Amino acid sequence: MAHTPIPIILDCDPGHDDAVAMLLAWGSPSIDLLAVTTVGGNQTLDKVTRNARSIAAVGGITAPIAAGAARPLLRPVTVAASVHGETGLDGPALPPPSRALDPRHAVQLITDMVNARPGEVTLVATGPLTNLALAVRGAPELAHNVKEVVVMGGAIGPGNWSAAAEFNIVVDPEAAAIVFGAGWKITMVGLDVTHSALATPAVVRRIADVGSAPAQFVCEVLEFFAQSYKRTQGFEAPPVHDPVAVAYVIDRAVLEVLQAPIEVETQGRFTTGMTVVDRRAPAPADCKTFAATGIHVERFWDLVVDALERIGDVA
Amino acid sequence: MAHTPIPIILDCDPGHDDAVAMLLAWGSPSIDLLAVTTVGGNQTLDKVTRNARSIAAVGGITAPIAAGAARPLLRPVTVAASVHGETGLDGPALPPPSRALDPRHAVQLITDMVNARPGEVTLVATGPLTNLALAVRGAPELAHNVKEVVVMGGAIGPGNWSAAAEFNIVVDPEAAAIVFGAGWKITMVGLDVTHSALATPAVVRRIADVGSAPAQFVCEVLEFFAQSYKRTQGFEAPPVHDPVAVAYVIDRAVLEVLQAPIEVETQGRFTTGMTVVDRRAPAPADCKTFAATGIHVERFWDLVVDALERIGDVA
Amino acid sequence: MAHTPIPIILDCDPGHDDAVAMLLAWGSPSIDLLAVTTVGGNQTLDKVTRNARSIAAVGGITAPIAAGAARPLLRPVTVAASVHGETGLDGPALPPPSRALDPRHAVQLITDMVNARPGEVTLVATGPLTNLALAVRGAPELAHNVKEVVVMGGAIGPGNWSAAAEFNIVVDPEAAAIVFGAGWKITMVGLDVTHSALATPAVVRRIADVGSAPAQFVCEVLEFFAQSYKRTQGFEAPPVHDPVAVAYVIDRAVLEVLQAPIEVETQGRFTTGMTVVDRRAPAPADCKTFAATGIHVERFWDLVVDALERIGDVA
Amino acid sequence: MAHTPIPIILDCDPGHDDAVAMLLAWGSPSIDLLAVTTVGGNQTLDKVTRNARSIAAVGGITAPIAAGAARPLLRPVTVAASVHGETGLDGPALPPPSRALDPRHAVQLITDMVNARPGEVTLVATGPLTNLALAVRGAPELAHNVKEVVVMGGAIGPGNWSAAAEFNIVVDPEAAAIVFGAGWKITMVGLDVTHSALATPAVVRRIADVGSAPAQFVCEVLEFFAQSYKRTQGFEAPPVHDPVAVAYVIDRAVLEVLQAPIEVETQGRFTTGMTVVDRRAPAPADCKTFAATGIHVERFWDLVVDALERIGDVA
Repeated sequence: MAHTPIPIILDCDPGHDDAVAMLLAWGSPSIDLLAVTTVGGNQTLDKVTRNARSIAAVGGITAPIAAGAARPLLRPVTVAASVHGETGLDGPALPPPSRALDPRHAVQLITDMVNARPGEVTLVATGPLTNLALAVRGAPELAHNVKEVVVMGGAIGPGNWSAAAEFNIVVDPEAAAIVFGAGWKITMVGLDVTHSALATPAVVRRIADVGSAPAQFVCEVLEFFAQSYKRTQGFEAPPVHDPVAVAYVIDRAVLEVLQAPIEVETQGRFTTGMTVVDRRAPAPADCKTFAATGIHVERFWDLVVDALERIGDVA
Repeated sequence: MAHTPIPIILDCDPGHDDAVAMLLAWGSPSIDLLAVTTVGGNQTLDKVTRNARSIAAVGGITAPIAAGAARPLLRPVTVAASVHGETGLDGPALPPPSRALDPRHAVQLITDMVNARPGEVTLVATGPLTNLALAVRGAPELAHNVKEVVVMGGAIGPGNWSAAAEFNIVVDPEAAAIVFGAGWKITMVGLDVTHSALATPAVVRRIADVGSAPAQFVCEVLEFFAQSYKRTQGFEAPPVHDPVAVAYVIDRAVLEVLQAPIEVETQGRFTTGMTVVDRRAPAPADCKTFAATGIHVERFWDLVVDALERIGDVA
Repeated sequence: MAHTPIPIILDCDPGHDDAVAMLLAWGSPSIDLLAVTTVGGNQTLDKVTRNARSIAAVGGITAPIAAGAARPLLRPVTVAASVHGETGLDGPALPPPSRALDPRHAVQLITDMVNARPGEVTLVATGPLTNLALAVRGAPELAHNVKEVVVMGGAIGPGNWSAAAEFNIVVDPEAAAIVFGAGWKITMVGLDVTHSALATPAVVRRIADVGSAPAQFVCEVLEFFAQSYKRTQGFEAPPVHDPVAVAYVIDRAVLEVLQAPIEVETQGRFTTGMTVVDRRAPAPADCKTFAATGIHVERFWDLVVDALERIGDVA
Repeated sequence: MAHTPIPIILDCDPGHDDAVAMLLAWGSPSIDLLAVTTVGGNQTLDKVTRNARSIAAVGGITAPIAAGAARPLLRPVTVAASVHGETGLDGPALPPPSRALDPRHAVQLITDMVNARPGEVTLVATGPLTNLALAVRGAPELAHNVKEVVVMGGAIGPGNWSAAAEFNIVVDPEAAAIVFGAGWKITMVGLDVTHSALATPAVVRRIADVGSAPAQFVCEVLEFFAQSYKRTQGFEAPPVHDPVAVAYVIDRAVLEVLQAPIEVETQGRFTTGMTVVDRRAPAPADCKTFAATGIHVERFWDLVVDALERIGDVA
């Protein structure tokens, strides 16, 4: 019970499911949210950074927030306005930010915080991997000093932004190739599991029953997300990708994972941004890449509801 | 019962499973085997052509046999000696060929035969797609005159020759891209189903029980194949890929198929030769590419055993 | 003087400069024009084939004409309407074709004619290389049976259709890769020399002075071409690319050539269709690829004028 | 006369010609050498950093030296041991470093120094562009705050490390693509000009005549370099690439430059690392990429000799 909370930095691009990920990380007693860093992805950097600050206001999150990369390493900016709307967080009314941005660039903040506690900090990334790629190439010692990296992104099976690729990876495939090949332990939480993390009506009811303002905010987030996924991809209930990566840090039992070599395709005509997971044979023992293959959905939502209950109503 | 047999040309690279495919096509009362054409693949063109002629001697196959492309369109020659041995059909004793080769190039034979019966001939390909690509680019009317194309090759899920690609496709990905995009109806019978077409001991026993020399030959073929797959890929029983494509021509109920756009990757660093099947949404109604997603294994082996029984002992 | 004329097949996509190439090949006493074959390029196959037949009517060319590939091996059809107009030969009035097409596909005709005279026939290609690629892959013996291949296409230095690529190559780079790597002797007559084969006013005057109807036709062809090149690429006088390749067959002294490895880029983002000529060191003695590096312009135009004079007025 | 010296940071991978570049930058009265930063290239980061410090000891260079990226963004490490030897500076005896390294990562030092003097600092890069790429992606304001970038690397014509690519670019083509596309003014000083900056015997004699220890050191550097280039590439005298970029900062008249779009190929099979300079038409007026097309060799060597004379004998 008296486990020390796990220190994480959440690198994200809020984004509806990122909002839930932030609240889960903040509300969970198992996590010590050191900082939130932002990266252009679901919307432009300015928009997702503003959203992150507003979500912090909703949830009373006092961790520092720092803005990072506004564009992919090589590719032009791509945003997912079709899914997240013009603001990147269309739907709920957003309060103004209540706290100032950290003055550091996200890459600097990540580097500073990780190196201050070698071997302790987990990086959870739920957007394109530009910040993490810049960090580890600019400060290679991070490959040893980070405890592990958990990424929402990629897929063993079908993609969502193309037939073979998931959005977070295909937006900056070169960054993803750097991050997956950096030599740290990294777990890919891909569409194979997040497409089962559906915010069904029963789930939404559980969240509504929490009865707090942040829970009400999550319900509004999920309502917009439901409409988006219904309209763009035909889902009956929306998959809530990003908090699954956070949940896996809280409780390993949420996901089944496979140790396997993972490469990111950067050159394909039809496959750029694909995460190629080699399942043909057991991975070598020193393989440091892992892919989620199964999810315990109930357990996942329990964690989300628990976090919201702990956050309660923010003064 | 009195259905007219379906005229097919079998384009193959024997090859252990190709041998079974040839015998299935020859023994099935539902198929009129117009010709066998060969292509470099499992082994060099010379070897697979000699094998085809020896298999014909084993099975009393009198359809013409014509040799085709010795090399892929752009890539260097790759063979699967690790799976099929130095001869391409290691294991069983091979009788000498009993009949002469057709003097035509396979591409010419295919073009002649298809154009002689517009709309009637099915092409079944169980090797690299070089011959079919050359045929349809040299004689574009084939795209209309062929009834349909059924290909053993590719995969929706994992590959076998690389993490993402199946052997027949990756050996000549440019040819595959041409064939999948040619505009004719084409069905991909990939690893997703053929990896279930296992020659288990029970299956081998059924075949042995046929009691004929050709059946005995198949048992020897499968015995070598079992050792190969055990050694190279850890299979408990070997997948017998190629006859599944023939079986689908005989009986649609052998496979479940999905109508879906299929692209062949030719530019990827990790994905060249991958068949990218877009399952994100229902295919447009005019989509002419199909992928097998399920197999009725018992039904498949019934067809193989039945064909061997009908072939009986060759005089 | 009594040299035997060199038998050639001219594979082309007329096209203004192709028209001059056809007339040069027909009028030169040093060339035995066995056939003209066509390929989609400057315009669609139907249009360039019709143009070839009309040019034949203008020049009294009685060599057989056969139509070939309507599209590149893998890429979509690209035409150069901006340079050659909607018909592919805008400008001069075109007489109706006077002779029927050869019933064979160009690839078949090339294969038949070359194999009928092993070691004797030169292939001159002035369009995309689709026909030649299909021929040598479908009938690999051509690599030995062809005497040599001379290609108008490519560049050592800058391209014209992109910064790095010339039109004939970039339209079907996979075909070009096959043709340059086929193992036959091949000479690339690229923009490095054809951009000096300018139809200046003095040249046009010389041609006009021939005084025949075909010469008048060439003047009209060059007049349109001059406007095209002025408008699209800023040339003061138009480069007449294609007949330079024919001229080199007639008289080696027209071009300086370098023996050097040549590769065709098929995968580049900015360089697809580039002919990469390795000039870093002397080529190995058995290198069979050559690139033109210098041109004797006067000598070239002398050959064109001479051919037109010999053609005279066609009855 | 009383011009303010131009503040530059020299980002390099010494390297024989980098050594000359460092001494030229240090000795020239027109340059204020703010710092030397190092990057893995000609040899590993450790070696080139040690070399930079030893060269500083030779020349009495007191500018801070900071180490940067040990590896390219995506590609594996490549070194030019065949040209520069096992140490990266084989040949001359090297004194031990006389000063400590700056504790900052090169990327941090570059960012700090440029942002401290917005619009003033010129970046001169004579190695792979990894540091500059990381800097501008991590601190995008650099694209505005840097005065200009001058790069020794690339080629309009033939390459040296492949038929189409120059070493500094092909070692980290993704970094080069970032740097050439960053939006700052950038001038490419490529092989087209540096292959004329030959250290002929006459040049070496002029340098020897300076008569100082640093000049003697340069002679030894050039002697080894001469042997290297003779052996590996057949040069009669070695091209001394890197100081040409420095010389251009000192005196614009050293080079003729062309304003033209420049793209870096990252995907080609034969062209990766090529700098594709589009010379087909005049560049748009706002084009910020420039390529050197001509060099005044005498003027260049005058600057080198002058710098060595000013350095004199270091106490």
